Amino acid sequence: MTTPLPTNYEYAQALDAADNLSRFRNEFVHADEDLIYVDGNSLGQLPFRTIERMQAVIAQEWGQALIRGWNMGWYEAPSRIGAKLAQLVGAAENQVIACDSTSVNLFKLIIAALKLRSDRPCIVSDTLNFPSDLYVLQGCVDLLGQRHQVHQVPSTDTISIDIDAMCAAIDETTALVTLSHVVFKSGFLHDMAAITKRAHEVGALVLWDLSHSVGAAPIELDRCGVDFAVGCSYKYLNGGPGAPAFLYVRRDLQDQITSPIWGWLGHQTPFTFDTDYEPAEGMSKFLSGTPPMLSLLAVEPALDLMLEAGMESIRHKSVGLSSYFIELFDAMLAPLNFTLGSPRAAAQRGSHVSIRHPEGYRINRALIDEMQVLPDFREPDNIRVGIAPLYNSYSDIWETAQRIRTVVEEERYVHYPEQRLSVT
Amino acid sequence: MTTPLPTNYEYAQALDAADNLSRFRNEFVHADEDLIYVDGNSLGQLPFRTIERMQAVIAQEWGQALIRGWNMGWYEAPSRIGAKLAQLVGAAENQVIACDSTSVNLFKLIIAALKLRSDRPCIVSDTLNFPSDLYVLQGCVDLLGQRHQVHQVPSTDTISIDIDAMCAAIDETTALVTLSHVVFKSGFLHDMAAITKRAHEVGALVLWDLSHSVGAAPIELDRCGVDFAVGCSYKYLNGGPGAPAFLYVRRDLQDQITSPIWGWLGHQTPFTFDTDYEPAEGMSKFLSGTPPMLSLLAVEPALDLMLEAGMESIRHKSVGLSSYFIELFDAMLAPLNFTLGSPRAAAQRGSHVSIRHPEGYRINRALIDEMQVLPDFREPDNIRVGIAPLYNSYSDIWETAQRIRTVVEEERYVHYPEQRLSVT
Repeated sequence: MTTPLPTNYEYAQALDAADNLSRFRNEFVHADEDLIYVDGNSLGQLPFRTIERMQAVIAQEWGQALIRGWNMGWYEAPSRIGAKLAQLVGAAENQVIACDSTSVNLFKLIIAALKLRSDRPCIVSDTLNFPSDLYVLQGCVDLLGQRHQVHQVPSTDTISIDIDAMCAAIDETTALVTLSHVVFKSGFLHDMAAITKRAHEVGALVLWDLSHSVGAAPIELDRCGVDFAVGCSYKYLNGGPGAPAFLYVRRDLQDQITSPIWGWLGHQTPFTFDTDYEPAEGMSKFLSGTPPMLSLLAVEPALDLMLEAGMESIRHKSVGLSSYFIELFDAMLAPLNFTLGSPRAAAQRGSHVSIRHPEGYRINRALIDEMQVLPDFREPDNIRVGIAPLYNSYSDIWETAQRIRTVVEEERYVHYPEQRLSVT
Repeated sequence: MTTPLPTNYEYAQALDAADNLSRFRNEFVHADEDLIYVDGNSLGQLPFRTIERMQAVIAQEWGQALIRGWNMGWYEAPSRIGAKLAQLVGAAENQVIACDSTSVNLFKLIIAALKLRSDRPCIVSDTLNFPSDLYVLQGCVDLLGQRHQVHQVPSTDTISIDIDAMCAAIDETTALVTLSHVVFKSGFLHDMAAITKRAHEVGALVLWDLSHSVGAAPIELDRCGVDFAVGCSYKYLNGGPGAPAFLYVRRDLQDQITSPIWGWLGHQTPFTFDTDYEPAEGMSKFLSGTPPMLSLLAVEPALDLMLEAGMESIRHKSVGLSSYFIELFDAMLAPLNFTLGSPRAAAQRGSHVSIRHPEGYRINRALIDEMQVLPDFREPDNIRVGIAPLYNSYSDIWETAQRIRTVVEEERYVHYPEQRLSVT
């Protein structure tokens, strides 16, 4: 017997055999025996439980209970699902609620934060932030009369943001620091504790977008003293396409702010139909209109799975898988002109790994069309390998690296056009 | 043979036999053979086609296609469903898009309208408007610094708004007139053409909330020259609990305004991930975040049914049913101390009829708990009978009147408490 090499398939199988989360793989629908799905950072896979639950929601709750469904769990769904999300983001109860899209929730909280710090003219973000977050921010600045300056701290290497540069950019003129916890292209994981601490030292507020970290990376909102957070539930949370998002407001701030979008579900007494708005206590005031119930209820079985697995185990496996992928990258892909587009240190990484290649776009197309590997691509040359600890295996990771190598070694990408407009 | 009396059950059966939309009743799930569901103005019934469609959306599109679902119809869903909605509201193409909740869409368009008429300080609505619409409006006024006055034209009789009083309230100081097309309590149908004309004569903009009219009452946005409209799709459109809403912007106004909520799906080129927002052309700019796809796609089969039936036939049957109910009301319920809470003239009525009684709350509870009739109740004494022409029959209407009579004649309501907090 020889010691297994880390690049052997048998080694991947041995890692799978030792994986204490492996049973969760069978909780998900796998589209095709041979498909390697490494895009859970864009859209998570479908849990079998969700199929069952949605059959009941549609046929029994809507079909049979009809309007009475509101008295059978629909009305409480934003809070009930928020309470489950809270456990995944390190928040004590009554600080998280599920509703609307990430963009709409960002809008609510940016406006609220800027009103709370109306004497301060600056907003700090970074050049690696998710573009949609920057758009919402620009829209808020426009709406409030272009009175704010947005300072985007630049990255030095397109992968990460220097913590000292970030902290130096935050000062007494800063109203709000708003960042993606994990950077969508590189997977860089910000130091939430240090940045939040710096913001609070100078009296600024912080708003974290957890879309690319929740369900895969450790988040401790309460312990870090975070003011505001938002996140989406269709990536690592496996809540379904476009699943409703969530927002977090630290308890002692809840009385100090209102949502700019006043709607009946945010009213103190929604069913008295008063003509004047009176905001509800606590998180309910951040609701506005009626939530899209089918999409919202689809999130819940997926959260239950995640809570069963436990965030500590999930993070442990995420780091195991992504570190393994980087080992394989070094051995199999770096020699083929790939460069790593993600941090090497696990502590600075979320759960996806970007690899870069001058022919990245065409390689990604070949992977999807010919190799049964489904990652995604982000300009200009990033292939993002999204790693979902609940359903991806070490064998998946080995197959991904192996098939990428095949595409390049056999030049299977050369007949694809260079055009670059695609959803995936 | 005697001539059938209008209060005979046989007469209802004869009307059903002559109903050319009767076949659509079988397109819907009916919860219980004996249940009379007259709350389609709150939550429409489930079409069988939606069950089938959602099984495919969940198991095939999400489960099998995964992220590729976006290239298989998801991405176009807001516009495609918007185009179907357009046919129900009298709008030529590229003026309607489906997204977000009614409240969020109202917010977007109120802010946009007030910015477009920033030199004018007044907003006109009425005291019968849906409270949530007033809340959103109050929130917009607050956000813009309390620079606007909201004038709510009062009703004289709690049922309707005098058209002359409404027109007199609209003048050169009016930035925006925002009204519910059909009043949620009384079912009163505003004269959209006359009010829009008056607003335009003095340079004001109009925004109609179609939530309580779309799918049941005639709407001619283009012909009336309406500026903006919003509406929900879970009432008469049968799109499912909390189904995404829609918005309409007249074509020549689309270039003049932006949404205050800038998000990636409203960007000119969402997949280039530019860091600066550039609004899309046309209606797409009113999208913000990713739409809740399960809830959104559930709307479509229900719209197809409605387009097959045709709005002219639907309105014809709606008037037939509601007029029949008022005939039965006069004969069977008026003698029992009920008063009519809706307009008598069909041209002034949407598709629900309110009946009022000092014991309305307890009668409504008895109807639900003992009589297998499901209407809803609105303060202080309105029982709303929602009439959905696609699945309600003349026999349903007869049963509703008959069972209400039974509850009152047999005093079945007296043992219910007077407490008044309920969703239905």
